[in-house]
Amino acid sequence: MKAVRFSAFGPPMDVAQLVDEAREALKPGEARVAVLATPINPSDLLTLTGEYGMLPKLPATPGNEGVGRVVEVEDSDAVSPGDLVFLPTGAGTWRTHLTAKAAELLPVPPGLDLIQASMMAINPPTAYLMLRQFVTLQPGDWVIQNAANSAVGRYLITLAQVMGVKTVNVVRRESLAAELKAQGADVVLTDTDELPQQVKSATNGAKVRLGIDAVGGDSTRRLGDSLATGGVVVNYGAMSGKGPKLSAAASIFKDISLRGFWLVRWMRNASREEQNATFARLAELMSVGTLQTAVDGTYPLERIHDALQRAMEEGRNGKVILTPNPAT
Amino acid sequence: MKAVRFSAFGPPMDVAQLVDEAREALKPGEARVAVLATPINPSDLLTLTGEYGMLPKLPATPGNEGVGRVVEVEDSDAVSPGDLVFLPTGAGTWRTHLTAKAAELLPVPPGLDLIQASMMAINPPTAYLMLRQFVTLQPGDWVIQNAANSAVGRYLITLAQVMGVKTVNVVRRESLAAELKAQGADVVLTDTDELPQQVKSATNGAKVRLGIDAVGGDSTRRLGDSLATGGVVVNYGAMSGKGPKLSAAASIFKDISLRGFWLVRWMRNASREEQNATFARLAELMSVGTLQTAVDGTYPLERIHDALQRAMEEGRNGKVILTPNPAT
Repeated sequence: MKAVRFSAFGPPMDVAQLVDEAREALKPGEARVAVLATPINPSDLLTLTGEYGMLPKLPATPGNEGVGRVVEVEDSDAVSPGDLVFLPTGAGTWRTHLTAKAAELLPVPPGLDLIQASMMAINPPTAYLMLRQFVTLQPGDWVIQNAANSAVGRYLITLAQVMGVKTVNVVRRESLAAELKAQGADVVLTDTDELPQQVKSATNGAKVRLGIDAVGGDSTRRLGDSLATGGVVVNYGAMSGKGPKLSAAASIFKDISLRGFWLVRWMRNASREEQNATFARLAELMSVGTLQTAVDGTYPLERIHDALQRAMEEGRNGKVILTPNPAT
Repeated sequence: MKAVRFSAFGPPMDVAQLVDEAREALKPGEARVAVLATPINPSDLLTLTGEYGMLPKLPATPGNEGVGRVVEVEDSDAVSPGDLVFLPTGAGTWRTHLTAKAAELLPVPPGLDLIQASMMAINPPTAYLMLRQFVTLQPGDWVIQNAANSAVGRYLITLAQVMGVKTVNVVRRESLAAELKAQGADVVLTDTDELPQQVKSATNGAKVRLGIDAVGGDSTRRLGDSLATGGVVVNYGAMSGKGPKLSAAASIFKDISLRGFWLVRWMRNASREEQNATFARLAELMSVGTLQTAVDGTYPLERIHDALQRAMEEGRNGKVILTPNPAT
């Protein structure tokens, strides 16, 4: 049994090490899960470098989501050996095996692609909930987002389309336009101070009431200045390294408000029913192929350094996935 | 009949001129009001310089509030000559006489000091509403504000005290502490990056859920970082010249939200009943002397340049008030 571990914050390839783990006996109610697939998310890289807003006590094992197969259960009927399950969110998933409470393991619905399913717990609900929790959108309404080429951004394009909501997608590189449009983006614009005028023109003056921000700093301000009076900017990331801001005119005269979204808070506060309904809906969209994200490559745990290097490269073609055990 | 007028944006003393106005005949339903007192507010100065977020078409007459005496009425029973009334908000009040719809003039309640009453329409309701419209505060709760020495800041200290709510007051100069405390401020702190720790210590770790921001930029961020999870920063000004911002940690992990407040929007949207109730409550507090602000000096309209110069000086002892007609 092996795990990725880091004992200091720093460049991911310097601090991440593959270590052996002892096989500890399960306690009653626990299950041992062999990890089949677990992605490298941007928040994992920021956790390794020490730049993320919430940092673990060290030493720690990175990784927050994935899928696995139950290999052993102690005194519980909740799952059985052989079951395919989602890994508990935030469990430190970059390892060959992890121990979890059997009753908290959710089954992977039949027919799901396991690599796609390994990415279902964080980014899809983030996109799904941001489209629903702040502004009531109707078919034909518009939403604007930056970082549109990120995993969340791509899911958001698809999930908005399913709702009949149109998207303005803000990117740094104009070269991404064709690809995003092929995926269903209605409008793609680059992130400049002309954004508000360009949004107005591209949407025929539609009242855009929801902005989704993963960048922070001036990029948040441009989204805010692109919204109609009373609009809401939802901030869920700070890729620029800066916190979100608004112009005084947007804040005071246009009643634009700024809200934060953090999936962990939703998981703490939402009822079990609401969470199950959300994941069931996303699994359904994933199983019919509506919701899927590009995969750049898969790596066994031994190649963690290659995987991290690739995950940090610009111009990848999708997610980097760790596959600690072959899916049999 | 005279009025202050400006035909270009620029330094207030350069662009503001005193001009003669023709006495036009009233239309049915109109009243002519002799202006008795009208203050110079920061937003007036920013309008003259062209820095305010909403600018009038030029030429224009500055001034947004005040009190006057009805001198003539055409075909209306709403007011009578001799009545003391509040000037319509935003009417361009720096003039000897203005024309208004008689039915829209609110009477000044008996017993009010007219100079104090001339400042009642903008700053007191701004402070009053920001304490009520965003977070439900209970006696013993805390609120934090910056620009605590401003007119709104001073009213807010008093209005919070009336509610039994304690205030943390953030100022640029420590020398203001004694004066603000004498007025009822519970805690006075200077605006540095140590603010969140200092707030925690000064309030014994109380959960501060409301921050009031008139400064923008990093000052907003410090307020946001001083609030408890789920808190709200209300932004109503940009004295720093910068829009409001939050740290990514406050926005995402602490669910701090940022809202704007603009009195003009409230006046557009609130029912007549709500507006009357608000002003009646403020007039009551003003008439018993609870709500009052310091006056630095009064100036006839002929001394508009002296008045503007004084209004722009640091270290004044209160508001500068124009008195176009002697109160007889």
